[in-house]
Amino acid sequence: MPELLRALTERRAQRAFAPEPVSDELLGLLWQAVSLAPSHGNTQPTRILVPATAEQRKALDDALSEGNRGWATAAPVLAALASIPEHSKPAENRDGTLRELWAFNSGIALGNLMAQGTELGLIAHPMAGFDEPSVRAVFGVPGDVRILAVIAIGYPGDPSTLPPDLREKETAPRQRLPLDRLVVRGQWTEQHGESARGPGKRRG
Amino acid sequence: MPELLRALTERRAQRAFAPEPVSDELLGLLWQAVSLAPSHGNTQPTRILVPATAEQRKALDDALSEGNRGWATAAPVLAALASIPEHSKPAENRDGTLRELWAFNSGIALGNLMAQGTELGLIAHPMAGFDEPSVRAVFGVPGDVRILAVIAIGYPGDPSTLPPDLREKETAPRQRLPLDRLVVRGQWTEQHGESARGPGKRRG
Repeated sequence: MPELLRALTERRAQRAFAPEPVSDELLGLLWQAVSLAPSHGNTQPTRILVPATAEQRKALDDALSEGNRGWATAAPVLAALASIPEHSKPAENRDGTLRELWAFNSGIALGNLMAQGTELGLIAHPMAGFDEPSVRAVFGVPGDVRILAVIAIGYPGDPSTLPPDLREKETAPRQRLPLDRLVVRGQWTEQHGESARGPGKRRG
Repeated sequence: MPELLRALTERRAQRAFAPEPVSDELLGLLWQAVSLAPSHGNTQPTRILVPATAEQRKALDDALSEGNRGWATAAPVLAALASIPEHSKPAENRDGTLRELWAFNSGIALGNLMAQGTELGLIAHPMAGFDEPSVRAVFGVPGDVRILAVIAIGYPGDPSTLPPDLREKETAPRQRLPLDRLVVRGQWTEQHGESARGPGKRRG
């Protein structure tokens, strides 16, 4: 197995952080990985938001959902990932219908960041559970800019420091679609349309 | 510089392919990288569509924009990346407004695939220029499933085989936002909201 794939396989949505800070040099490598991500028309719609003061960091902690505050506030670094829809012209189909690409492009950038973090031995755990207007307020971000993730960054710590329910999640076997349900060879079947979370879990 | 970042730095949106086929084993590693990508609520909304016959491959070639047909038809493998919005529950802000995450999640998966391709010495060049209804028709994909990219995959070839305008693109210096325009430290400024393509290029 190639090294990166092994690292990706080992990467888990870890929640236990060591107290060690992450150097500016390593953080710079993560931001560089974002910068190198390709984007439709090279519009580069992604921005990274990093608190500059303890007050800002506290305000970003407070913007998290209750569940995420239970572990992510212990991460030495918390950063938000923003995307600017206005910069990204939608792709056009032959019938004139459109495809928006800004969120997809920003996802590629986060994929790059996470792969880079994995290679550096860092946790880079993205969260969707946060209040977007509160995150905008922390950094003075205009309302037309979307916040797509808050990312907890740090070195892996001791899972026994986590509450029991999160400790269990940390070590539970990884659930992934088998490749024959992920990859469509020739013809889409009903099985390919089934949710990874089960038939009763649409929009769940 | 860490190995992956060097590889990401060297990765270009290459268009010149060698005629060598890509083994099923290597393609499997790319699909595995997609499978390992994290998703909000582990909904795994991404699917990969691979032509099973020469007729299907030709039909996928025909779904590309004219510009992309000029080079991508020479790639030994062409695959489409689909995303299923219905599987992905939007995240909710405190005021009840929603954040859709399926396209963002599928972008993370493509970021993983591209990083894995880069490590394997493969080109994996995603395109936005294609007709979505035509790609759906090739694989019999339902209308509520979105096609976000068609990806040209293969080994790097000889750029001198490309038409002159594309050859120039292949070797032109990479244009990326400087990190101080990508990373917001503390406070969003007007400069952070400027498009990477220049002030006159909004939605461009």
